[in-house]
Order: sequence, then structure tokens, then C-alpha cells
Amino acid sequence: MGLYCFGIDVGGTTVKCGLFTTDGTLVEHWEIPTRVESDGASILPDIAQTIQAKIDELGLEKDNIDGVGIGIPGPVNEKGEVPVAVNLHWGFKAVASELSALTGLKAMAGNDANVAALGEAWKGAAAGAKNILMVTLGTGVGGGVIIGGRILHGTHGAAGEIGHANVKHDETIPCNCGNHGCLEQYASATGMVRLAKEALDAAPEEESLLRVPYKAGTLEAKDLLDAYKEEDPLAIRVMEHVGDILGGAIASFSCVMDPEAIVIGGGVSKAGKPLVDCITKYYRQYAFSPSKPTPIVLAELGNSAGIYGAARMVISD
Amino acid sequence: MGLYCFGIDVGGTTVKCGLFTTDGTLVEHWEIPTRVESDGASILPDIAQTIQAKIDELGLEKDNIDGVGIGIPGPVNEKGEVPVAVNLHWGFKAVASELSALTGLKAMAGNDANVAALGEAWKGAAAGAKNILMVTLGTGVGGGVIIGGRILHGTHGAAGEIGHANVKHDETIPCNCGNHGCLEQYASATGMVRLAKEALDAAPEEESLLRVPYKAGTLEAKDLLDAYKEEDPLAIRVMEHVGDILGGAIASFSCVMDPEAIVIGGGVSKAGKPLVDCITKYYRQYAFSPSKPTPIVLAELGNSAGIYGAARMVISD
Repeated sequence: MGLYCFGIDVGGTTVKCGLFTTDGTLVEHWEIPTRVESDGASILPDIAQTIQAKIDELGLEKDNIDGVGIGIPGPVNEKGEVPVAVNLHWGFKAVASELSALTGLKAMAGNDANVAALGEAWKGAAAGAKNILMVTLGTGVGGGVIIGGRILHGTHGAAGEIGHANVKHDETIPCNCGNHGCLEQYASATGMVRLAKEALDAAPEEESLLRVPYKAGTLEAKDLLDAYKEEDPLAIRVMEHVGDILGGAIASFSCVMDPEAIVIGGGVSKAGKPLVDCITKYYRQYAFSPSKPTPIVLAELGNSAGIYGAARMVISD
Repeated sequence: MGLYCFGIDVGGTTVKCGLFTTDGTLVEHWEIPTRVESDGASILPDIAQTIQAKIDELGLEKDNIDGVGIGIPGPVNEKGEVPVAVNLHWGFKAVASELSALTGLKAMAGNDANVAALGEAWKGAAAGAKNILMVTLGTGVGGGVIIGGRILHGTHGAAGEIGHANVKHDETIPCNCGNHGCLEQYASATGMVRLAKEALDAAPEEESLLRVPYKAGTLEAKDLLDAYKEEDPLAIRVMEHVGDILGGAIASFSCVMDPEAIVIGGGVSKAGKPLVDCITKYYRQYAFSPSKPTPIVLAELGNSAGIYGAARMVISD
């Protein structure tokens, strides 16, 4: 094992970069812009350049560097290849091998949600756990599966894509993916707002803290979660419905992998303990008996989870 | 790697035993009775004795034997410990370490459904695959998850217990496990018969091949599957309902692990291609786009899957 490694998290507007010691200490972190023009052709060369600049600045020796891990917003297979990454304007790209050629370092690539899960399993909410499920609640619903301390990529790079598990066979509204009844349609920020609007429309006489933002056209998930914490009855009904769907879905996922911990992350998770309590209540109801005690915990690394997990990928056990 | 290994599959009435070469050839197979009296105290000593007898009979050298793997009808954790195995009259038992002490060989233990999955991934329907989901349709619904060519036991020994994934939140009839709405309540032989009876009761005037066995009190899953193959309209409706629930559930499991193949085994799978086609049709409808092409195949090793998988457990990569 070397002394250092790099963890890179590529987003649609910025690339987060971290230099770590291989025991998991973040030495330095910085950002560079993501240049998506010309089919994102500069993205990997820019990353290679900023890594080399950091190596030169600190006078590091390449022999002491285990490698560079990189998280990508799109599917990534076990070889570190990306079939397509819309937000980066990429078609097929052999990310790991290209980045290795550009840097002269070992390189490994993973899907950004999977990489964040690995970060949380390494130094975050589930530090030290070998098998975890991470559930990322944001604009959509993503996830990551860690087995034996390593990312499970899946045969088509789709392991952990739990937002597209079907939870309602008779849904008529389509999901962005083309299917109908995906978990994401109810448990994402977008889905929660849709359910809140439906509840408001269904009970036009009922007072609710959500009326004002709804009428103003500004209703967002934060309003719902704030009203839930304020014990607004309509908000409680909506969140209990979300908790029932989400807790039940996670209970089903536990029947597949029986993880040590379930980590809840993403923007919606800023709602904190009340959200986790609501999910946990329904998880316990639906989970198979041996898995009922599995802890459901809030993610701890926030936006840094990606650079931690990316760095962890390239460290040998 | 040695030349030989033993694979043992413990059932409630008989113990299946196999001697394999480490390249996967079944050299000999035989059975001994399962003696469950006295809290099943004789089961492991009996197994150790029959293994030693086979070693003596064939004049094998212990140095040439990789070890003995054993499948148990109950939950098994990564250490090879069983908290309880009702059918064997066992409470807690450290199966792997006890069997190792009794035989003087390396021993590893796994849940029988998980071990069968490993057998199918080694030499059966998914030979050579590293990541598979096996779905076992029998009196109940079981399953096994293979990741990286190894059994995923799960934190509480409950990985692959997909029969207890909740697929109907508002079910009022309880499952044997105490929850309500488990997959097993619809997709097991027992569950299919229940759905068929409900359909017969709901359409008392409708002719069906299932009327005669229903009135005779002998209706079983085989009647339903035979009538389905005969294109009996009522049987088709029931099996399409089962396929919708089961195909949808498997599609959700694929969102977690994105396997290379899904293997359908257990007694119900004797219905063959029409059953697989029915499951596949709904799997393709509900699966997330990248995982839609995943092949769904029939198990091939039948009752021998357990000894194959048990043997594979103890072979080093």
C-alpha cells in the first residue's frame, strides 16, 4: 500500500478533487470546472493536469501514490467503462484506462452514487461496515450497494439503481425512465412534491402550512418536510405515505442483500431524524424478521462522500 | 488447490453427500438418513463418519482434499454458524467449526438455498457466472444471491430471502413469517393454489380444468400449471397474475444487484418454459432499462444443486 491516493468526483459543473492518505485522512481538497464543451473531451485531461500539478506542488513521489479513483454521473461497469454520461456530454468512454494513461497512475471508475456509498462505508455513517445499502434521496432516487467493502457495479452498471424499482404496478403516470410506478416517482423530492399537491387538491378545505407556497407556485420538498416537523396534519399524511412506500421498498431490498446498515443521503436527507424515523417505522413493519434490527442512519459526509469513496476504490485491502 | 472436496446437503429426512474433483466432476454421490432425535445431535457426527468411510474406501489422502462444504435448511452467517434450524431440531450450532473438528478438514457452511444457487452458478444453468440471483419456487419461495462467485450470506444470514419481500402492503392474510403481503404468499406452490381457489370461487359459472381437482379437494400447483399449458382461461388469468407479481419483484431485485442471470428453480419450476416465459414477460415490463435483457433461465442441477454448491464453497479461487 502506498501513502497517498486521489479521489475525484465529477459533476455537471464542477469536479471535486481530494488528496488522501491511504488511512483515510483528507489532506487537501479543491475544485476545477467541468468543461463539457466538445463532447466533454477536456474533462479527463483537465483532471490529469490538476493531479499532476498537485503532485508537483507537494513534491510527491508517484511510487507513493496508490492511484486515482473517479466517480461519474452515469452507469459504470466493472472495467471502469461508461456507455453514456448525459450530463458530461459523453458517449462511450473507457474512463479508467484513459485516466490511467493520462496520469501514469492506477485508475478506477465508479458510478457517483455507488462511490458515495463506498465513502460512507469507509469514513462516514457506516464507517467500517462491509455490506451496506445507500439510498440517495434528491431530485431523483439513487443508491449504492457495497458488498465485501467494494462497490457492486452490476452486470450492466445498474446495481444500486433502486430508484427504478417498481413499487406500484398500476401507476399510469410515467417515470423519466419510461417505466411506470418507479420508487423515484414517490420518494424523490419531485415525487414528494407531486404527492403533496395531490393531497392539497384532494382536500381543498383543509388548512395546511403548504397552502401558501402551493398557491405561490413555490412548493418544494423542503416546505413539505418543514411542515411535517411542525406536525401539519396534511404534511404528516403525505410523509407517512412516502415512508410506507420507501420503508417497504428498502425492506424488500434487505431481503436480497441483508446489509449491515442502510444509509440515507441526498438533499432530502437534510430533513434529518424525523425523516429517518418515518422510514424506519415502516421498514421495521415490512422487513423480514432477521433483518428488522438493521440500523437506518443519516449520511455523514455530505458532498464529500464522493471523493472519499473514489479514493477508497484504489486502495488495496 | 487439492484434488477432491466433499459437498453435503442436509435435508429434514436425508443427507445428500457428494465427492467431487475440484474441477467440478461429481465422482460419487450417496445419501444417509438425517437423525433428528436428541436435538439432531448425531447429524454432524454421522456426516463426519460417512466422509471418513468414503476416504478409507477410496484410499484418499487428506492432504489432497480441499475440504467439506455443507448446506443447511436454515439461516447461516458468514462464520458458518446457525442460530436455529427447525427441521433439524437444532438451536444454535457452530456448524462449520464443529464439522471441521469432527473431520479434520476445512469446513464451510451455507444456507441450502444459497448453496444451491452457487451450484447453479458453478456447473448448472448459469455456469461460469459470477453474479446471479436464484429464485426457488417450492412450498415456499426462497432464493440465493451469488456475488463475485461467492455466496452472499448477509448480516443476519438472511440475504436471498426474497420470499419475504413485501409485494402487497394492504394484504390482510398473514404470511407464515408473521408479516403480511410477502412474495411467498402469491408465488409459492401454496400461494398459487390459494389464488386459483380465489379465482374459482369468484367465477362459479366459469368452466375450468381446475374444477374437478378443486371439488375433489386435491387441487395443487401442478394442476394449475398443467391447465395453464392447456390454455385454460381461468388458469391463464391466475398465472398472469402470479407472473405480474413475481416478474415485478424480480425486476426490483435486479435494481439492487443487476445480476448476470436469474435462475428459476424449485419444484414449481418443473412447469418449464411456459412458466419462465410468463415471468420473463413481466420482468421485461418492470425492469430498469439496462437490466431488461438479463436472461431468466431454468435451474439445471435439480436436487443435486446443493451438493455441487456445497463442494464449490470450499474450493479456493
